Amino acid sequence: MGNLVIVRHGESQWNMENRFTGWTDIDITEKGRQQARRAGRALADAGFRFDFAVTSLLKRTIRSQWLILDEMDAMCLPIVKHWRLNERHYGALTGLRRDDTIAQFGEDQVWKWRRGFDARPPLMAADDPRAPAGEARYRDIAPQLLPLGESLKDTVERVRVFWDEAIVPQLKAGKNIIICTHGNSQRALVKLLEDMPDEEAASFEVPNGVPLIYRLDAQMRVLERQSMQIADATISTIL
Amino acid sequence: MGNLVIVRHGESQWNMENRFTGWTDIDITEKGRQQARRAGRALADAGFRFDFAVTSLLKRTIRSQWLILDEMDAMCLPIVKHWRLNERHYGALTGLRRDDTIAQFGEDQVWKWRRGFDARPPLMAADDPRAPAGEARYRDIAPQLLPLGESLKDTVERVRVFWDEAIVPQLKAGKNIIICTHGNSQRALVKLLEDMPDEEAASFEVPNGVPLIYRLDAQMRVLERQSMQIADATISTIL
Repeated sequence: MGNLVIVRHGESQWNMENRFTGWTDIDITEKGRQQARRAGRALADAGFRFDFAVTSLLKRTIRSQWLILDEMDAMCLPIVKHWRLNERHYGALTGLRRDDTIAQFGEDQVWKWRRGFDARPPLMAADDPRAPAGEARYRDIAPQLLPLGESLKDTVERVRVFWDEAIVPQLKAGKNIIICTHGNSQRALVKLLEDMPDEEAASFEVPNGVPLIYRLDAQMRVLERQSMQIADATISTIL
Repeated sequence: MGNLVIVRHGESQWNMENRFTGWTDIDITEKGRQQARRAGRALADAGFRFDFAVTSLLKRTIRSQWLILDEMDAMCLPIVKHWRLNERHYGALTGLRRDDTIAQFGEDQVWKWRRGFDARPPLMAADDPRAPAGEARYRDIAPQLLPLGESLKDTVERVRVFWDEAIVPQLKAGKNIIICTHGNSQRALVKLLEDMPDEEAASFEVPNGVPLIYRLDAQMRVLERQSMQIADATISTIL
């Protein structure tokens, strides 16, 4: 059974501004770049080797993965980029600041949208210029598969297809894989891996740039999940 | 028929030091990064869109391609990385400075190795720690395919397989492709595309970071090959 590492992208501009990002293609900040480089260096120092890397179709995971592989001197690895690993689609909340959303909808409702498992936010209009069907990168995907707003449950279901078809068979074939994710696609993966209860998955905390290391048995059961320790000393040297 | 753009990587450290690089995985310089970014910006300004990108397994093409795609806001494109697009393998000359090689072997001999079509340099020893068979990135490739020294003719023949199998069918399917190459893998591609005579291919000049734009007809005949003009004004702004 191959090794699996899952790491959320480095801090993005909208993480910093507390805005609902969803499928908006926001880049990572300078701090986010350092987080990704640090993750790559820690993985290299710990002797990790991968057969291939995986990202979403959004640049915050792609750039983070590039920086991780650069630090590991592994730029030549294949990188699989797939829309099913995109962040949860935040529907009509996309682009709003969290504070403004709370002022408009109330704290309870916003909390439900953020940390409920099956609460779906108000949908984005199908003719919104930001709707995925209008973007070149999604043009080969059947339009009915592209979301206009998702609950975490919806995200889990679309991640599941990719997990079952593209990741599990490769792990069983002994391949070592690193996946760079978003907060909610990571929750989805962790839920699928650990068969985690819905509410626990919804509140599972996913810090930027901290690799989760999984050891699995031949039946894909989790023997160990470990958050990689990244020493403060390293951080202060780099920042 | 799809569009095809071929661009050599930005200046590498060993280009600058006039050393035979071959398959050594040397990175690009700061100037090389700027050349790649400039190429990407020029392609974006000219309205190019690609369906996928191609590189060798060496980081000077991979980093150049990353920078080009970053400038084009096209980081989400699939990137195919393949050993058959690696630079010509320079055998026992690998790592030597051009001046030292001339002092040792004489100017005529070195010129033949550099610009002859079928002159093969002295081979690298099979047990040289730098031999490709010992490197993780080539471990899935049949060892008898991996070179220990190549003439340009040898390079053309191994590029030909990739060209015929991975590029031509995609162009015929209407895909737009950007390939980031090395000097000699670019000579090989240009020879294959234009059915260029051996000696002309061997002396074809390939500057770093200047995109070659091909227009092809349905029979893969070249209607036009154009070197992209990159204005000095742009250069001075960026450097």
